[in-house]
Amino acid sequence: METIAIIGTGLIGRAWATVFARAGHPVRLFDAAPGAADKALGLIREGLSELRAAQLVDEAPDTIAARISAATTLQDAVRDAGYVQENTSEREDIKRQVFSDLDAAAPPDCILASSTSTIQTSRFAGHVPGRHRCLVAHPVNPPHIVPIVELSPAPFTAPEVVERTRALHEKVGQVPILVKKEIEGFILNRLQAALLLEAWHLVDEGYVSTEDLDKTIRDGLGLRWAFMGPFETIDLNAPGGISDYADRFGEKLHGMMQGTQYRRWEGDLVARVEAERRKLMPQSEHAEREAWRDRRLMALVAHKRAQDKGHR
Amino acid sequence: METIAIIGTGLIGRAWATVFARAGHPVRLFDAAPGAADKALGLIREGLSELRAAQLVDEAPDTIAARISAATTLQDAVRDAGYVQENTSEREDIKRQVFSDLDAAAPPDCILASSTSTIQTSRFAGHVPGRHRCLVAHPVNPPHIVPIVELSPAPFTAPEVVERTRALHEKVGQVPILVKKEIEGFILNRLQAALLLEAWHLVDEGYVSTEDLDKTIRDGLGLRWAFMGPFETIDLNAPGGISDYADRFGEKLHGMMQGTQYRRWEGDLVARVEAERRKLMPQSEHAEREAWRDRRLMALVAHKRAQDKGHR
Repeated sequence: METIAIIGTGLIGRAWATVFARAGHPVRLFDAAPGAADKALGLIREGLSELRAAQLVDEAPDTIAARISAATTLQDAVRDAGYVQENTSEREDIKRQVFSDLDAAAPPDCILASSTSTIQTSRFAGHVPGRHRCLVAHPVNPPHIVPIVELSPAPFTAPEVVERTRALHEKVGQVPILVKKEIEGFILNRLQAALLLEAWHLVDEGYVSTEDLDKTIRDGLGLRWAFMGPFETIDLNAPGGISDYADRFGEKLHGMMQGTQYRRWEGDLVARVEAERRKLMPQSEHAEREAWRDRRLMALVAHKRAQDKGHR
Repeated sequence: METIAIIGTGLIGRAWATVFARAGHPVRLFDAAPGAADKALGLIREGLSELRAAQLVDEAPDTIAARISAATTLQDAVRDAGYVQENTSEREDIKRQVFSDLDAAAPPDCILASSTSTIQTSRFAGHVPGRHRCLVAHPVNPPHIVPIVELSPAPFTAPEVVERTRALHEKVGQVPILVKKEIEGFILNRLQAALLLEAWHLVDEGYVSTEDLDKTIRDGLGLRWAFMGPFETIDLNAPGGISDYADRFGEKLHGMMQGTQYRRWEGDLVARVEAERRKLMPQSEHAEREAWRDRRLMALVAHKRAQDKGHR
C-alpha cells in the first residue's frame, strides 16, 4: 500500500486522510500551522467513530487511525509518498508555491493532486518542472461520506497519471469522474449553479417560497437523483429511451428556459431568502444541523450500499 | 372520508387511486376506454403488493383495494365525489371538454384538479362556470411513491379551494407545494430543465461523458438533494448561512454561467447521448429497469421515513 500525503488538515484534508487510511494506506499529514496536524489526528478519530456507528467502516477506529501520522515539515510528509492530496487555501499564489515545494520534495513518480474547487490545474501547476504529474482531484464536502471526485487534468498532465489517479480513487471506494477539458466550476458546481440560478430566480419573481422550492427537490427530483443521474432519469421517462424523450420534450424544455435573465443574488433578494431560511432554521442551530446533514448522508450511503448489494 | 374520483386510469391515474385509497378514502375510477377502469383495478392491486413488500402501507392490499370501484360513466364516477383528480391525455382541447363535463356533473363543492404537467389552469378551465374550483395538482411519476405535488391555481381559482386541496394532499401523505403565479413548467420541471440543459451542453462540448455526468449527481449532489433542498444545502455550506454563501460564491457562480447558449437536443448530439446510454442499458432492459427504479424509490422513501422518525 503506497503512502498518501495530505497537505493541509482542515475539514477536507482530514476527510481525505480518513478515506485513504480506512482503505489501508499509511497516511502522512502536514499543515503549515504549528500543531494543526496533531490536532487533526484527534478530530479524524472522532469522525471514524461516527463512520463506525453508521456501519460504514469494518475496522475499529483506532486500527484505522493508527495508519495516520503527523509530519513536521512538508518535505517529511511527502518523502515516501506515492500520492499527495493538497488542501491548502483556495488562492492561486499559495497553490503555485505549494506545488513548487511538492514537486521539489516528492519522489519522481509521486502524483500531486489538488482538492481545489475553483482553480484549474493549468493555473497552479504550469510553472512546475514535474507538471505532468499534477492535476485536480476535486471532492464534495465531506469526501469521506460523499464519494464523487472530479479529476480535472491540464493538457500537460500525463494520461498515465490521470489513469493511476482514477484507479487509486476507485480502489479506496470513491467514485472518480473525468473532466475531459478544463472548465470553470468543473462539472458538479456547474450543474449545481444551473439549478441554483433558476431556483433563486423563481423565488425572486414570486413564483414559490424557498421552503416549497426545497420540498420540490427533496420530496421530488432528489429522490431519483440520489441513485440515478439526470440522463438515466430521462432515459427511463420515455418508453423509447433518451432519443424518444428528446423528441417529445426537448423543444418544449429548451423553449421554456430561453430568454431568462438571471440577476445577481444581492440586496433585497438575499435578505428575503435569508429571512425565509432563518424562520426554518435559526442561525444558532447551524452547527447542529450540519452534524444532522452528515448523519443523514452517512445513513443514506449505508442504505445505498445495502440496496446495491441486494438487487441491481 | 370524502369520495375521490379518478378520471383516466393510466399509470398516473392508478397511482392516484392508490394514494387516496391507502389513506382510507373511497375511490371511484372512470376511463373513457371501455374496460380500462376494470383492468386498472387489477394493476392497482399488484402495485399495492409491492408497496406492502416495501413496508410503505400498513393494511393488506385487498383491504385497500376494496375501497376502489370502477364507474361506467364520468357522471357516475363524480356524483358523490368531494375531489376529482383528472388524468386524461395531455391535450388542451381534451382537457377543456373533460372539465366542462366534470363541472356539469360534480357536486357544487367538489374540487376539480388536473394532473397535467404542461397545461396551465387558465388554459383548460377558464371557460367553465365553476372555474373557481379548478386547479392543477401536478404529481411526479409515480405519485404513490414520490410524494411531491405542485398545486398551481389560476387567478380565478378560489383561495379556499387551494387551501382544501393542500390540506387533502397533506392528510393523505403527499407533499403539496404552492406555485403562486402560473408559469410554464411549474417549479419542478423548470428546475429539471435548468440542470438538463447544462448537462446536455457539457456532454455536447466534450467536457464529460453521460455516464460520468450521471455519477456526478447520483454519487455527489443527489445525495444531499434526497433529503435537503438546494437552499438548505447552500445555507449549510457557508458558516454564516445563506447570505454568507451568496457573498462568497454568488458573483462567481453567476459569472460562470453567463453567456452560455444552449443548443437544441437534436441530430448528432441526441444520437451520441443515445449511443452512450444504450451501452450502459440496452433498450430491451427498459421495462425491467423502470421496475428497478420504482423498487429503489420505494426503498429510499422507506429509508427516509425511518430516518425522519429516528432523529430530526
